[in-house]
Amino acid sequence: MSRGKTTLMDLSNEARAFIRAHRVGHLATADARATPHVIPVCYALLGDRLYFVADDKPKRGGPSALKRLANIAENPRGALVIDDYDEDWTRLAYLLLHLDASVVDSEAEYARAVAALRDRYPRYRSMPLTLSTHPMVRMIPRRWHLWRAGNPQEANK
Amino acid sequence: MSRGKTTLMDLSNEARAFIRAHRVGHLATADARATPHVIPVCYALLGDRLYFVADDKPKRGGPSALKRLANIAENPRGALVIDDYDEDWTRLAYLLLHLDASVVDSEAEYARAVAALRDRYPRYRSMPLTLSTHPMVRMIPRRWHLWRAGNPQEANK
Repeated sequence: MSRGKTTLMDLSNEARAFIRAHRVGHLATADARATPHVIPVCYALLGDRLYFVADDKPKRGGPSALKRLANIAENPRGALVIDDYDEDWTRLAYLLLHLDASVVDSEAEYARAVAALRDRYPRYRSMPLTLSTHPMVRMIPRRWHLWRAGNPQEANK
Repeated sequence: MSRGKTTLMDLSNEARAFIRAHRVGHLATADARATPHVIPVCYALLGDRLYFVADDKPKRGGPSALKRLANIAENPRGALVIDDYDEDWTRLAYLLLHLDASVVDSEAEYARAVAALRDRYPRYRSMPLTLSTHPMVRMIPRRWHLWRAGNPQEANK
């Protein structure tokens, strides 16, 4: 079975289940001068990729939304962490994904990502989403690390 | 009143209240080559600064914890986002802080930060924390942006 760097074959079933079981992640990007940025994102997992809508309500934060896209254009590298906070720290867990991000320019891929996002987030069902008005970002994981408090670690490297 | 760039005079009372009312933030850092990293952090606000313990349980994620400190040593710039996820997107809000991060080397400052963290997080009360074993990171906000769905934005620039 292929374990190419661009496929989610590198993700375990547990990591995939962790992604699907959560509702929000936090994406870090950086511009070419290495100034970091971070934003919450609602994502969908589709095949070997994660997707989020980069702009417009309800995630638009004025300059923040634009900054995300500018960073991705300058520097495709990103890091996404998916986690829950719990006051019982023995229950803490997170999945950290190192990834490459890029804007979708195929109408067919855009439509598939929209469908996956609408399946997960009802609010998107009533929102008009088009490639030209609502940029879609594709995230391709390169490395990942799943951590659970007190448990053995699992990672692809 | 001074609005110097190193003081939290730049934070509004609402932004400070937002920080204090939340339990976890997500910190993005980047190494000198602009590779981003992101991790959840439990923080305390003390005067004009935020602090978190950079290493050891329960947040240690193996290479992740070390990566955070290595990034900060290479590149002090960071971004911290504090937010709640809610399935009702009209209730979404976040505070994004652009900051400089550095490791505390003063015993007195370390002790004040530990006390503030133990006040917020009972789990820290039973955990031995010393400057040499548990590095403490100081975050000094430079710019910030508070966003609430549907509400006017508030920021210091």
